[in-house]
Amino acid sequence: MSVNKIEHIGIAVKDLSVSIPLFEKLLGVKCYLVEEVAEQKVKTAFFKVGETKIELLEATADDSPVAKFIAKRGEGLHHIALDVDNIEENLSTLHKEGFQLIDEKPRKGAENFSIAFVHPKSVNGTLVELCSSK
Amino acid sequence: MSVNKIEHIGIAVKDLSVSIPLFEKLLGVKCYLVEEVAEQKVKTAFFKVGETKIELLEATADDSPVAKFIAKRGEGLHHIALDVDNIEENLSTLHKEGFQLIDEKPRKGAENFSIAFVHPKSVNGTLVELCSSK
Repeated sequence: MSVNKIEHIGIAVKDLSVSIPLFEKLLGVKCYLVEEVAEQKVKTAFFKVGETKIELLEATADDSPVAKFIAKRGEGLHHIALDVDNIEENLSTLHKEGFQLIDEKPRKGAENFSIAFVHPKSVNGTLVELCSSK
Repeated sequence: MSVNKIEHIGIAVKDLSVSIPLFEKLLGVKCYLVEEVAEQKVKTAFFKVGETKIELLEATADDSPVAKFIAKRGEGLHHIALDVDNIEENLSTLHKEGFQLIDEKPRKGAENFSIAFVHPKSVNGTLVELCSSK
């Protein structure tokens, strides 16, 4: 694995209209993008802090993974995303090293990134996303 | 609030001897520091990814906040830490804006940082640490 940076930290919230102004106060910056990712049934809101983004996630359907997460654990930290250059190569490396992949091939995420998730079971309960803008 | 960067992401784990090699594989870097923070009853392990650190936290006592977290929610994402220049000033700003503080004054954390926690109740379930090396 070769990771450039923490690309973003995903936080599950119930209502972006409440959470966007809250995080604007907390982080001292304005939300720069709100985008719906239909495939994942979420609406996302982004903030830039140094080289990393905070991504708030609101479910757009009851069967959204984010809705299920909130129903089980409440709002809060949901995943971390690692920025890599070659997502296929790094997925292959992780697979060989015994990590359990949710996505064996990259798919399209917010901000037109290629993304793939690693199962939290194999990372001490931490949902990890690999992502690449390339 | 004026935040320089995400200083670190804290992840609660049961056993550093298992998790350190796991995260070394995941992140492609070696753990550069293991440090016990007696006051918080944790042993910490650090990895550098871009400008941000991953901090693994293992409880050193059953009444450690990290032990309680794992008993309730399992291993996983525990907190995010925001790097600020003036921790007292930013705590005061957050307090005025209605955030509930766990620490009204900074205390000493790992790596000799001044740290203070904001209550997750006021940040959509997200435990937030302010920290400063100054």
